[in-house]
Amino acid sequence: MTSRPGPESLRSLFWPRSVAVLGASNEPSRIGGRPIRYLKEGGFPGPIWPVNTKGGTIQGLPAFRTLDELPEAPECLIVAVPAPAVCDAVESAAKRGTRAAVIFSAGFAEADAQGKLWQDRLVKIAAETGCRIVGPNCLGLFNARHGYAPTFTASLDHGHPKPGVVGMVSQSGAYGSHLFVLTRDRNIGMSCWLTTGNDCDVDVADTIAYFADDPDTKVIAAYVEGIKDRDRFMSALERARSAKKPVVMMKVGRSAVGAAAAVSHTASLAGSDVVYDAALKQLGVHRAETTEEMLDVVYAATHGIFPETNRLGIVTISGGAGVLMADAAERYGLDVAPMPEAAQARLKAILPFAAVRNPVDTTAQFFNDMGLVTEFTRTILAEGGYGAVAVFVTAIPRNRETGGKLKAALAKATADFPGRLLVLCMLATPEMTQEYEAAGYLCFEDPSRAVMAIAALNRFGRSFARGNSSPPPALPAAARPIPKGAALGEAEAKALLASAGIGVAPESLARTADEAVTAATSLGYPVVLKVASADIPHKTEVGGVRLNLGDAAAVRAAFDDIMDRARKAKPAATLDGCLVAPMITGGAETILGVVHDASFGPVVMFGLGGIFAEVLKDVTFRVAPFGLDEARAMIREVKGFPLLDGARGKPKLDQEALAKALAALSVYAAANAGRFRSIDVNPFIVRESGAVAVDALIETK
Amino acid sequence: MTSRPGPESLRSLFWPRSVAVLGASNEPSRIGGRPIRYLKEGGFPGPIWPVNTKGGTIQGLPAFRTLDELPEAPECLIVAVPAPAVCDAVESAAKRGTRAAVIFSAGFAEADAQGKLWQDRLVKIAAETGCRIVGPNCLGLFNARHGYAPTFTASLDHGHPKPGVVGMVSQSGAYGSHLFVLTRDRNIGMSCWLTTGNDCDVDVADTIAYFADDPDTKVIAAYVEGIKDRDRFMSALERARSAKKPVVMMKVGRSAVGAAAAVSHTASLAGSDVVYDAALKQLGVHRAETTEEMLDVVYAATHGIFPETNRLGIVTISGGAGVLMADAAERYGLDVAPMPEAAQARLKAILPFAAVRNPVDTTAQFFNDMGLVTEFTRTILAEGGYGAVAVFVTAIPRNRETGGKLKAALAKATADFPGRLLVLCMLATPEMTQEYEAAGYLCFEDPSRAVMAIAALNRFGRSFARGNSSPPPALPAAARPIPKGAALGEAEAKALLASAGIGVAPESLARTADEAVTAATSLGYPVVLKVASADIPHKTEVGGVRLNLGDAAAVRAAFDDIMDRARKAKPAATLDGCLVAPMITGGAETILGVVHDASFGPVVMFGLGGIFAEVLKDVTFRVAPFGLDEARAMIREVKGFPLLDGARGKPKLDQEALAKALAALSVYAAANAGRFRSIDVNPFIVRESGAVAVDALIETK
Repeated sequence: MTSRPGPESLRSLFWPRSVAVLGASNEPSRIGGRPIRYLKEGGFPGPIWPVNTKGGTIQGLPAFRTLDELPEAPECLIVAVPAPAVCDAVESAAKRGTRAAVIFSAGFAEADAQGKLWQDRLVKIAAETGCRIVGPNCLGLFNARHGYAPTFTASLDHGHPKPGVVGMVSQSGAYGSHLFVLTRDRNIGMSCWLTTGNDCDVDVADTIAYFADDPDTKVIAAYVEGIKDRDRFMSALERARSAKKPVVMMKVGRSAVGAAAAVSHTASLAGSDVVYDAALKQLGVHRAETTEEMLDVVYAATHGIFPETNRLGIVTISGGAGVLMADAAERYGLDVAPMPEAAQARLKAILPFAAVRNPVDTTAQFFNDMGLVTEFTRTILAEGGYGAVAVFVTAIPRNRETGGKLKAALAKATADFPGRLLVLCMLATPEMTQEYEAAGYLCFEDPSRAVMAIAALNRFGRSFARGNSSPPPALPAAARPIPKGAALGEAEAKALLASAGIGVAPESLARTADEAVTAATSLGYPVVLKVASADIPHKTEVGGVRLNLGDAAAVRAAFDDIMDRARKAKPAATLDGCLVAPMITGGAETILGVVHDASFGPVVMFGLGGIFAEVLKDVTFRVAPFGLDEARAMIREVKGFPLLDGARGKPKLDQEALAKALAALSVYAAANAGRFRSIDVNPFIVRESGAVAVDALIETK
Repeated sequence: MTSRPGPESLRSLFWPRSVAVLGASNEPSRIGGRPIRYLKEGGFPGPIWPVNTKGGTIQGLPAFRTLDELPEAPECLIVAVPAPAVCDAVESAAKRGTRAAVIFSAGFAEADAQGKLWQDRLVKIAAETGCRIVGPNCLGLFNARHGYAPTFTASLDHGHPKPGVVGMVSQSGAYGSHLFVLTRDRNIGMSCWLTTGNDCDVDVADTIAYFADDPDTKVIAAYVEGIKDRDRFMSALERARSAKKPVVMMKVGRSAVGAAAAVSHTASLAGSDVVYDAALKQLGVHRAETTEEMLDVVYAATHGIFPETNRLGIVTISGGAGVLMADAAERYGLDVAPMPEAAQARLKAILPFAAVRNPVDTTAQFFNDMGLVTEFTRTILAEGGYGAVAVFVTAIPRNRETGGKLKAALAKATADFPGRLLVLCMLATPEMTQEYEAAGYLCFEDPSRAVMAIAALNRFGRSFARGNSSPPPALPAAARPIPKGAALGEAEAKALLASAGIGVAPESLARTADEAVTAATSLGYPVVLKVASADIPHKTEVGGVRLNLGDAAAVRAAFDDIMDRARKAKPAATLDGCLVAPMITGGAETILGVVHDASFGPVVMFGLGGIFAEVLKDVTFRVAPFGLDEARAMIREVKGFPLLDGARGKPKLDQEALAKALAALSVYAAANAGRFRSIDVNPFIVRESGAVAVDALIETK
């Protein structure tokens, strides 16, 4: 068993020296015929070896009857024979020296139990030989830079991909083809394309990691239905971010119906959708909701300019369009900040009835004086401090005369601002659009889509700029591991969390009413009493909690009452006594939690207490571990945030103490992955100074 | 002064018997030249009379030097002379018999004070003569059915509109042209198009009302920046709904920046955006956020099928697309309900590894057996009970052979279901798309956009089906009008609301501590005391409220204390004493309010009390008056609704009493429009049985 090969091993897939096609067909539209046809069409420079039991000549090439007859092991083997014959063939080739195999054949894990066994064997072959296996049940791949296309997708019938910078990987063959066709239709160039089929070895994470290293790839697009290895997935995305390569991902299965369909469609586990949202946001990935959005962002990203500021300047020749774009900017989080006063005054002097604040609007007056377009655009570029400038020109470019003048006027305005993101919103023919693109503009028909794409580029820019956000804090040396399997009482859970650096309200275990009174006197009245028993996780249900006890008599009575009720409700429970804690008032109740997500492992949740979490589902998530930056972002993300920030005349609470607790919890949860089902710190009370856990529950595994 | 002419008066604009162009130009690309050129190109059958002080021949037609020289008044006059000359010309023509004028000239209210005076005069001319005036500062209009285009938009250079069923009106000339170009590019046919310019007479409401009556128009599209006359606007939209004509509206100015730009750009008042949202939803209008969405919904609506059920059936040849579409369906409120078990079993028997629940997926197996497409599609149409069925076929139609087979397979499946909404998601050439459209399919490239459009058609279907929702209740005969100008105390405000049929907590005015004790004893303890003074609207600020008073002594002390504090805080206030009311506990605090919106007049707000309204802005609006159906919908719309419906183990509260109060308040507010600035009923406590106002404030005008 060798260790998993690095991303560079995928080179044998994307650009091998030699290729054999097992199950080759003379018929160029059949599954075994298409890859040979495409390899020939693309002018593959190495040997192409068709293998077919009938031998003879296949598409003009001499065919071999068996793999053994080949002069040497092909670097890459394409497999298009029925499932029962696949494993032996791949194993024998891999042992002879084949470095990669692309398996078109279906009838594996997606089909039945026998297929699952065959697929397991493929996994083993890959692991043992280091031969990288794509599929089975996949549509293959292509490398557009070299015209190399070992695939049987029929979408190449209507044209090969244009070489370019987009690397694409898809867990769905059909949808991967669909995306490729759209990409080609929009004249976006690609580097490589790969469909993972049943994901037995090469998966989305491997492919993204390869693209992150591949100098030909600048933009990464991925269609994902589910992931199996969070660490590789996340590290591949981190690798892409470090390389400043934007990743645009479509992860389907948001809805209940959609997720059910995703699970039935693939063999993978679809993680809870909010966790995907959180994880992808953490990793700087643009998650696209629609195919159109995916293509829009991919197209925009190929331009290679990622503004770090969210300030957007807008130039229009129609006030209506400016309003529309300002609305879209707000929707997508861009700031249509006003121009400096002086610049506004100067433009106003040039055209008194123009809008000059931002959006700036030349009005139809530009028909009479094209210099207005130059002056307005140059001013907004030079003086507005905008990361991106969008110019709305409707269908003017279509008009030969006015369009020509407009192009010249814009060229004059933008000449001094290379590297600035310039976006044109216009209605034009594809040929005209290409001319404008060649001149350095991103071009969109729909102004709202243009604004959406600009916002995406800005988010990439900020993600690239910050690099990694603040690292997770170190796990305190004193942190005690969660004991596996043991049922934990509240006191033990809080002691563990305290060892991990999370603030916990002082408390004392009292075994008798006398001890309770002593503890209360030492802690200070009023106090709270709670039954202490590892066998009673939900204390209020048995009447095991009494609040606001003001004196010794009240404490004594409460102790006896609690023990009495607990004994009656849970006769078999071992009762340790009662926890005595000071009654904490004021501040805000929050909930910190950790769940073990099927896809992403320990995931930390944050929300405000009461109706916020329960009724409004106003909570937010992050994959553990994370640092203070992410924790601060979580706190600001919930809708109830104003309640922590001085809303309704209340004091501003200690958000920094809360952030530290969240980061510490994330580190502790990550260190204890696999040892617990869930952690709940509820309530975690945030005060004007400091924040403490008042109750906690750890469900061990 | 005549009363405002009805919608039929716009016929003189859209299809007059004779046209004169004042300021006609021989140069066909100039403002005064284009309408003549377009009228000639379109073969206008009536006389076209160019008017230009130079006389001679203009574009081959004999020109007149003045309007007076014309043989008779043109039914419609196109005006393209400088602003100072406009009013006299229009007035003289109108007096001679001209029924409509389209004023291209700028330099009116959008320019300066003199322009505003001229525009006011145009308003007067229209009102006095009944001559309908479009503009000034507008781009004109066209009637595509007759090739009649009195406009100077350059967008006609690239082709005249295709005749069809879409009527379009725009408050922005440039954006109206942009929308027209997009409509033509997408091969959508139009009936009429009109830009309102400065809206001096003919406005969006007039035009929508005309389209509602116009037999050529089946779908109405409007671009709106602000409205001035809510009654005409709303009744035009109701007229369209009664005629079962869907209205798709883009109302820009959502964002703060956008709204500011909208106001500076036009002379109209942009209403608060949430109120627009509420009003348009109430009227069954589809409010489009983006131009693309507008065109998508308009395109879909031209198909003329508006399903009343939101059940969506999905057929795919790729599982991934099905998941994506199911996600989109959830986002847009469609129900991807499963197929009946028997139908699922039958499809499973045909293709064991197919998805058969909904989405149903033939998998790539359809390549081998096109009958699967027929069988799956027919089954979902026949047995699923779906209002619409969407079929995803990626780029298959492009392939001559497979595409041909697919088309035949679909035709076979759908033949027995005329009138059912069938939507194809496919990548095809425009020619192929037209073939499919001719065969009865709606065609979209992007599956998410297809789902969005289906949802819009479904909302239209429901809106048409319900007709008017339940009518507003009658104003109670005992309802007293809000006294104009007077400052109202709490007691008076509540008495007015009680007269309008809104439940109010019993209370009693006590002028002395003794009276307070008597009242408390009669109401039952505990009670609440509140200072009674029309001069103290915010009672808590002066310490004028005391809660939960349990006995006579407490009441007596509280009375004296309140009066004392009030006297000190507001020495000039007239103090009537204290209101004594029972302390109401339990139930949920809600807020009912009415604001006077600049665009829509009295608008009723509903929300839950506390953080919901204040921190979370979790409130909803309706234009007053409305009936119980709308009131019930409001209650269910807020996110905090579960708190009224038994969340967190609490009892279900009396939502019907709440709905009645909302409807009664809306009727009272409408009847008192203009008499108040705002009404606040806060809190309005909803209990398990019944609901009462505990405090109320009416700001009079």
